[in-house]
Amino acid sequence: MAARFERLERGPTAAAGFQAAAVRCGLKSSGDDLAIILADQPCTAAGVFTTNQFKASCVQYSAGIVNGGRARAILANSGIANAANGAAGMADTQEMACAAAEVFQIDPGDILVASTGVIGRRLPLPSMKEQMPHLQPNLASGFEADQKMARAIMTTDTVEKMASVRCRSDGWQAPFHIGGTAKGSGMIAPKMATMLAFITTDASLPAAIAQKCLREAADHTFNCVTVDGDTSTNDMVLLLSSRRVQWVEGREQEAIADFQAALNAVCEELARKIAADGEGATKMIEVIVRGASDEPSARRIARSICESPLVKTAFYGNDPNWGRILMAAGKAGIPLNPDLVTLLIGGIMVFQNGAAALFDPDQVSARMRQPVVPVVIDMGSGGSEARFWTCDMSVEYVHINADYHT
Amino acid sequence: MAARFERLERGPTAAAGFQAAAVRCGLKSSGDDLAIILADQPCTAAGVFTTNQFKASCVQYSAGIVNGGRARAILANSGIANAANGAAGMADTQEMACAAAEVFQIDPGDILVASTGVIGRRLPLPSMKEQMPHLQPNLASGFEADQKMARAIMTTDTVEKMASVRCRSDGWQAPFHIGGTAKGSGMIAPKMATMLAFITTDASLPAAIAQKCLREAADHTFNCVTVDGDTSTNDMVLLLSSRRVQWVEGREQEAIADFQAALNAVCEELARKIAADGEGATKMIEVIVRGASDEPSARRIARSICESPLVKTAFYGNDPNWGRILMAAGKAGIPLNPDLVTLLIGGIMVFQNGAAALFDPDQVSARMRQPVVPVVIDMGSGGSEARFWTCDMSVEYVHINADYHT
Repeated sequence: MAARFERLERGPTAAAGFQAAAVRCGLKSSGDDLAIILADQPCTAAGVFTTNQFKASCVQYSAGIVNGGRARAILANSGIANAANGAAGMADTQEMACAAAEVFQIDPGDILVASTGVIGRRLPLPSMKEQMPHLQPNLASGFEADQKMARAIMTTDTVEKMASVRCRSDGWQAPFHIGGTAKGSGMIAPKMATMLAFITTDASLPAAIAQKCLREAADHTFNCVTVDGDTSTNDMVLLLSSRRVQWVEGREQEAIADFQAALNAVCEELARKIAADGEGATKMIEVIVRGASDEPSARRIARSICESPLVKTAFYGNDPNWGRILMAAGKAGIPLNPDLVTLLIGGIMVFQNGAAALFDPDQVSARMRQPVVPVVIDMGSGGSEARFWTCDMSVEYVHINADYHT
Repeated sequence: MAARFERLERGPTAAAGFQAAAVRCGLKSSGDDLAIILADQPCTAAGVFTTNQFKASCVQYSAGIVNGGRARAILANSGIANAANGAAGMADTQEMACAAAEVFQIDPGDILVASTGVIGRRLPLPSMKEQMPHLQPNLASGFEADQKMARAIMTTDTVEKMASVRCRSDGWQAPFHIGGTAKGSGMIAPKMATMLAFITTDASLPAAIAQKCLREAADHTFNCVTVDGDTSTNDMVLLLSSRRVQWVEGREQEAIADFQAALNAVCEELARKIAADGEGATKMIEVIVRGASDEPSARRIARSICESPLVKTAFYGNDPNWGRILMAAGKAGIPLNPDLVTLLIGGIMVFQNGAAALFDPDQVSARMRQPVVPVVIDMGSGGSEARFWTCDMSVEYVHINADYHT
């Protein structure tokens, strides 16, 4: 029997064994800005981190902990990225973890740390340490705790982002849960794109398999979102498993496959929410490349279309400017035969047989006004496909990112 | 003795043996839109073309002629790119060349064709053929003819772009000239970024050497300009040599080196003018990467900084947001040690020893208001360097590219 997913209105505490809390330390202009996800016992931990060569202290620190395969908490702040602060920045990250360890009476080596916000500014540790004890009495499970936690990691995000599922599978002894929250690659406050995603589960997985599943899910979801092609110094995706639910002996393959599918679903929902809430976005664009000779080629083409400012401004203007999409596909460097390429915008064929199709520009323009606009390009040269998500580029995007003075 | 350059207020007819003319065919909303550069005899020809997989008909056509190493004229139109029109588009390009061949009584195989403008629209050949005979009586040398020609290839460019030098070198029997014109990678009318550059010279060079010199010059100038990271279907750089001036026997190496230096100077001036006139630009940004382990790494870092929307919007806002520049350098994927990196904006040190330098943000912001802002990043990991040019990203950029309806 195939696995059945049920979506839940919850975030990271959807999985058994997790609580969350948030407080305000004054790192950003309003709202909570320090949050924790805490498990009642040490968890299996996995993580995927930014490839940017300038890695924030928290990225280096948390990657080290993930290497050990075990953690019990995720401590996250918004407002200050604590990036490009040299050795002092790393010392601040460590001090932040130690302060939380004391409050919650856990091992400091079990605390993953994530920061997002302004680069080059130091964390105000005294006020953070003053507020940290107030996290303890706020710890809770449920929608309200999830939402409070999800809001505390927002910067220029306009809405909190959560996703969770309950999954029944013959591979598992009982239904398992995956919950998560993310903050957007809408750029940060207003300094830098940072994508953070924290996923919890009660499904029990060896650390190496959890890491493999998270990498696989991130590659097809979070790594397929672009707002402006910029990669943050602070990006990270973390997974904690409380190991409450065991798989059925002898059905490991099925259990892992079902877990992977559920994890992909949660990550895809979070990724789509990030794209839809990109800075200044008025709509989300879902690019689907089909008929490519292999998957890496399909992804390069999809990414090239999603990163093109000309494509993104055309979508802002509801302009069915298919020439820009072909241009962006063509500059990806993958050999193609224009005569075999077909292109649909909002489900309407605009290009085929090497030239413009007969279409009504007003009708395509109307489809481009929808909140989600699919773009499907078939390369006609194979059987591989890829998806990528982005948003349009608006005047507001430039305002958000220019009208701030350091 | 080193070669001496003298800059001239001229364009493509600066070199002996060339004339230019332009007429209006109604391809764009106002002004001339069809132009020719004609030599009094067949020339050595070289060319560098777009790497976009969707190549316009004129790119395929002209690349074929350049392969033969000989041509006598460059026929260029603005307003319509004649790209993505399939076999009919190629037939139109051929017909355009044949019509000009008849007017000027030259071999159609000696005419290079370049088009720029809207994608997916067909050329109105009847009106073009009707106007073409009027090019003949307009043929002239001199500043006015150069300017008229340079304006005829403009689309969203706001100023015409010309550069030329006279060079005295011991390697050559007489002073030689190089003249050129270009149109911007400010996007097209308002459809697509296209960069066209047409260079003439009277220095006599074998076709293979002319091609090598043009490739070298383009790689360090035109290929170091980015407005939005998009690569047109129609980009081309063409070089014609009228072979009037011979090198001194036995001094070929010196002659070629001096020609290369002069060609680089002309191409760099045109490239800088293209960057400064990018769509919506309020300033030009010159990124200089030093201390890289090798030149390709230096160029990747420079390009990554120039293509970052976050960096470009910060410059529009005169915001000394050095964190974004480091982020863009770091995402290029070249290993780096933050502790060795130094960064200067407008000549002021903003980052060193792995952390922010002490600087006055108002002073840096004032430097960012200049028409040309240098950004110098030293990676501290070697002796290689590279330069790249771009412009800021303004609200006007989004308006230009969104407020048009196909």
